[in-house]
Amino acid sequence: MIAVGVYGATGYAGHQLVQILLAHPDVNLKFITSRSYAGRRLSDVYPCFCDLALIAAEDAPLRDIDVAFLCLPHGASMETVSKVWEAGVKGIDLSADFRLRSAVNYQHWYKKEHTAPALLSKSVYGLTEVYRDQIERAQLVANPGCYPTGVLLALYPAASQGLLSEKHIIVDAKSGVSGAGRSLKLTTHFVEANDNFSPYSVGHAHRHISEMEQELEGFSGQDYQITFSPHLVPVNNGILSTIYVTASVDRDELLDLYSQTYADAPFVRVLEDDRLPSLRHAVGTNRCVISITQVDDEGHFIIISAIDNLIKGASGQAVQNMNVMFGLDEQTGLEA
Amino acid sequence: MIAVGVYGATGYAGHQLVQILLAHPDVNLKFITSRSYAGRRLSDVYPCFCDLALIAAEDAPLRDIDVAFLCLPHGASMETVSKVWEAGVKGIDLSADFRLRSAVNYQHWYKKEHTAPALLSKSVYGLTEVYRDQIERAQLVANPGCYPTGVLLALYPAASQGLLSEKHIIVDAKSGVSGAGRSLKLTTHFVEANDNFSPYSVGHAHRHISEMEQELEGFSGQDYQITFSPHLVPVNNGILSTIYVTASVDRDELLDLYSQTYADAPFVRVLEDDRLPSLRHAVGTNRCVISITQVDDEGHFIIISAIDNLIKGASGQAVQNMNVMFGLDEQTGLEA
Amino acid sequence: MIAVGVYGATGYAGHQLVQILLAHPDVNLKFITSRSYAGRRLSDVYPCFCDLALIAAEDAPLRDIDVAFLCLPHGASMETVSKVWEAGVKGIDLSADFRLRSAVNYQHWYKKEHTAPALLSKSVYGLTEVYRDQIERAQLVANPGCYPTGVLLALYPAASQGLLSEKHIIVDAKSGVSGAGRSLKLTTHFVEANDNFSPYSVGHAHRHISEMEQELEGFSGQDYQITFSPHLVPVNNGILSTIYVTASVDRDELLDLYSQTYADAPFVRVLEDDRLPSLRHAVGTNRCVISITQVDDEGHFIIISAIDNLIKGASGQAVQNMNVMFGLDEQTGLEA
Amino acid sequence: MIAVGVYGATGYAGHQLVQILLAHPDVNLKFITSRSYAGRRLSDVYPCFCDLALIAAEDAPLRDIDVAFLCLPHGASMETVSKVWEAGVKGIDLSADFRLRSAVNYQHWYKKEHTAPALLSKSVYGLTEVYRDQIERAQLVANPGCYPTGVLLALYPAASQGLLSEKHIIVDAKSGVSGAGRSLKLTTHFVEANDNFSPYSVGHAHRHISEMEQELEGFSGQDYQITFSPHLVPVNNGILSTIYVTASVDRDELLDLYSQTYADAPFVRVLEDDRLPSLRHAVGTNRCVISITQVDDEGHFIIISAIDNLIKGASGQAVQNMNVMFGLDEQTGLEA
Repeated sequence: MIAVGVYGATGYAGHQLVQILLAHPDVNLKFITSRSYAGRRLSDVYPCFCDLALIAAEDAPLRDIDVAFLCLPHGASMETVSKVWEAGVKGIDLSADFRLRSAVNYQHWYKKEHTAPALLSKSVYGLTEVYRDQIERAQLVANPGCYPTGVLLALYPAASQGLLSEKHIIVDAKSGVSGAGRSLKLTTHFVEANDNFSPYSVGHAHRHISEMEQELEGFSGQDYQITFSPHLVPVNNGILSTIYVTASVDRDELLDLYSQTYADAPFVRVLEDDRLPSLRHAVGTNRCVISITQVDDEGHFIIISAIDNLIKGASGQAVQNMNVMFGLDEQTGLEA
Repeated sequence: MIAVGVYGATGYAGHQLVQILLAHPDVNLKFITSRSYAGRRLSDVYPCFCDLALIAAEDAPLRDIDVAFLCLPHGASMETVSKVWEAGVKGIDLSADFRLRSAVNYQHWYKKEHTAPALLSKSVYGLTEVYRDQIERAQLVANPGCYPTGVLLALYPAASQGLLSEKHIIVDAKSGVSGAGRSLKLTTHFVEANDNFSPYSVGHAHRHISEMEQELEGFSGQDYQITFSPHLVPVNNGILSTIYVTASVDRDELLDLYSQTYADAPFVRVLEDDRLPSLRHAVGTNRCVISITQVDDEGHFIIISAIDNLIKGASGQAVQNMNVMFGLDEQTGLEA
Repeated sequence: MIAVGVYGATGYAGHQLVQILLAHPDVNLKFITSRSYAGRRLSDVYPCFCDLALIAAEDAPLRDIDVAFLCLPHGASMETVSKVWEAGVKGIDLSADFRLRSAVNYQHWYKKEHTAPALLSKSVYGLTEVYRDQIERAQLVANPGCYPTGVLLALYPAASQGLLSEKHIIVDAKSGVSGAGRSLKLTTHFVEANDNFSPYSVGHAHRHISEMEQELEGFSGQDYQITFSPHLVPVNNGILSTIYVTASVDRDELLDLYSQTYADAPFVRVLEDDRLPSLRHAVGTNRCVISITQVDDEGHFIIISAIDNLIKGASGQAVQNMNVMFGLDEQTGLEA
Repeated sequence: MIAVGVYGATGYAGHQLVQILLAHPDVNLKFITSRSYAGRRLSDVYPCFCDLALIAAEDAPLRDIDVAFLCLPHGASMETVSKVWEAGVKGIDLSADFRLRSAVNYQHWYKKEHTAPALLSKSVYGLTEVYRDQIERAQLVANPGCYPTGVLLALYPAASQGLLSEKHIIVDAKSGVSGAGRSLKLTTHFVEANDNFSPYSVGHAHRHISEMEQELEGFSGQDYQITFSPHLVPVNNGILSTIYVTASVDRDELLDLYSQTYADAPFVRVLEDDRLPSLRHAVGTNRCVISITQVDDEGHFIIISAIDNLIKGASGQAVQNMNVMFGLDEQTGLEA
């Protein structure tokens, strides 16, 4: 049994993570922390019947666990990750704090100085299907952002084979409202988000661009520039990304490449017939569902991917990474 | 032209009121106030193109208007109403502060001392279809609560004829989320309210019971006890009330009575065939739609009413009352 | 391993059942049938990745299975149930065909002659928490309707102790749209059901009243008359029932009674504090969540129950019954 | 008063049109037809209180009207349009039948032979803001498709000035479910569309591409190729289009151009600050709301437009065209 602690269990990703961990056959959940709700039970915070006690992070018995999951806000996570590292405990960080390899880049995008830059080179970017080997040996995994997970899995096979011939890639992404977090704001008030559909931070503005561009360069050795348009969909969960690329091959070649690349990836589903992914294909699961549509004979393609933002885009992929780090079957506790 | 001011224009009822007033052919909207957004334009606060300036209540030229609408929280409204009264300006108060005739009753239900008890006997309860004559002459109208509007219109004909033979009346009511207001709380977070349906304050607990019982007694001279179960529906607007009563008549007699009672009420629609009201019959309009279903031969009836909580349940009825107070056709500005 | 067949796998209840059975550790799913989609795969019919083949009912190897689940329309189910019975195979019928003990009553409510009346006395009403002992020995189980499941579990402890002192019981129920089935009708068109909330068949009209009255009489030896108001909520799944009863005890006594009655019922949760059930407490699970609110000192109570209409109200309870019939732990395959 | 008839009044666009026409101060609505519901009233078909009688098209007194609106399916509309033309009555066709100038092109995209090709050159494409002068003199107006309306208004100023330097234009569009029509299909079943978000017909496949490419060529004299990805959003009404173009100017120049181009267009709103359009800016109105975002210094721009698919995308624009054809103020009956 793996002894596990969760820091920050009352946000949407943290709560989803706790649900997965409680059903995981090889996990012993030792503690869950909360800044706002320490002293309460999880059932005081969500309409559920889980009476686990929430404790303050300071009171968490860090040394009793094998692995810590950190579901803290970026900026706040760095400090706790450092303590986890120093305690010799494995860490899976769901914040953005250890995703970028460069502290300068981090400061540019997140407007904060990085206080643990030495750990940046120690952390492995936790896109399981791509970095499985490094994750096996990692002490610290930086779990990818929700948008980058779906986008990078949709681009990795083509990018890593050097097939993406146009440096500008357009990502038109649509996310459910849980992606905006549980903290209270007018944009996520029911009356404002319901019956609505709205773009935000479009252009070259959203922080997740930094991850996507870094990884695409890592895959391919080339510079790409992502034009990124996120939108809010009036559903709770899910991200659908419609991606516009240029590639000098045809659809069958791409489908072959994608199918081979992901042949051993149980959570990636490439649609080889004419179906297109919808949120329903992915929500409630750890899957990433991908389609490829050829637009014309000039190399224009639309690649669409769908994930559950809280599962494959956060807590599910985090558990998948834990499974890899501890030598378990990647699917353990995530099959449903 | 009637010179109008609105105090508290940025809540849902206030915003809806401003929209109605701007389209009203006989209204000159002089000012709109906001505590939180003074200095901004309405289009900064809502996704609209209304560039009206929001001002602080202290800066509002109260003496320049003929009538003030107050869309302030209960407790806060009393003070401004007093000023409006003293200025000799007509007032239509959408808060609960002047709905109850007794200051003791007010304190019991609202847990606050009433600071303008002398005005309680001056105010007229603004259920237009029932108190039209008094509203015509009123200087101060207390606009009914959203739940009481739909419930009282559904019960008035039978209650005022002494036909409701059982003193216990059950009201199972369902409201859209805008009824919970625009202030931020977890219960109205999109992710919590969406895909959900939840009861709250059931029993003899919700403050609107005080209005409903007071008015039923006024209609009938008898004591009634309301069992009231409000529920939150994942839609923006609308209230549907399913009401269980006992009456010693048959459905045809009740339908006749209701049709006659409301023969001159352009906004009340009694469904005389087998249709039942749904939110769609009422939302976006100032209508109250009513059906009567006979359950058995022992006098059990189900009366269902539907209204738009922000229109007939708040701002629409407020404008209807203004029309009556100023001698206009009741439907002016409310026809659509 | 239990060899299982499912007749009618492509409706919402059938599809949910297949998902549960596929994850059930002791089940070997031998076949799934469909009238409309025979020859296709389940993934052709739903946005999922289950490639199970759908076959015609005539081609189903009935004799190879230990138990058949029937998710067929009422009226159509009788015939197949008869074949299952004659083959000596256990049957769990999710239709209404074997819920009523009297063929006359069936014809009254369902406007069809019953073609297998001899089996009515053989079938056990599958409200697991109440009839567990008989279900253990049953060859044929009539799985309860969705509305009756939540209502009867909410009333059983009080009714069976003779505490419900008023013969008229009001049930104001609200169901998600999947309860209306997958066949196409205007009332379940997205544009009609979204942003709406509507009552239907209110009074003493809905067929599920027959089950509820039959069972209440069975529990108590007394006649009850249910006034039943179903409503459609714009969510996919879930039923919340707000039930108005009179009982000559106080809330603490009722809570004690309910807690004791359901002490060994893992899927029934009685809320003993001040929480009220919402759909979120139940949807996605096999739970029935119950609260009791005392209205006054005259014996008026509101009992609220929430279930998932497709799980505890259909396929989950069906699997719970299968577990009981085959001597498994009641929770097997239903824990999540 | 303009005497008006509506062919096909019971689909979503037709019903919306009737609502607008009934409130239009200069319209006398003479008849509304329906194939499926002839002999019924509109209130039998929609939850409303409009008791207008629906008649069969054959019984419509075509010669008594000044203008006919045709809300018939494409293919079916041609025949009735021909009769309207022959009767010397003005026609506004909301189907696709007279939008394309070439019968060959029509047959290519709509898989049907055009039976009234002579009228193709007589009809004016009813994008009011662009073709106002021709519409004034037209006897037959082909009302634009819902997607093309929002996309073409977003591209017209730049295209007509020759500023769009890259021939490939990507349009990622999102439509509410009413866009799929009121006829029954599984994709618009509430349970399938709710909590979902799904792309369809992506690439170079959707029929509206033909209109968009035809008009862009008309605006600019150049060939453009539209990559078009429509998606279904779980809301009733609205279309938001996120459009990716390349232009060799900067944002301020584009904003100036757009503001000047639309200076006299009361329904087009160009957002000159940092706001982005959301459905809420447009739904329920005849507006088209447009924003321009500069992505980088290499000429990449994102233009976003929002409309109500049933109003500006169908019936509202149709009435706007009628106003122009009859010399009325363009906004008559459409102000709200």
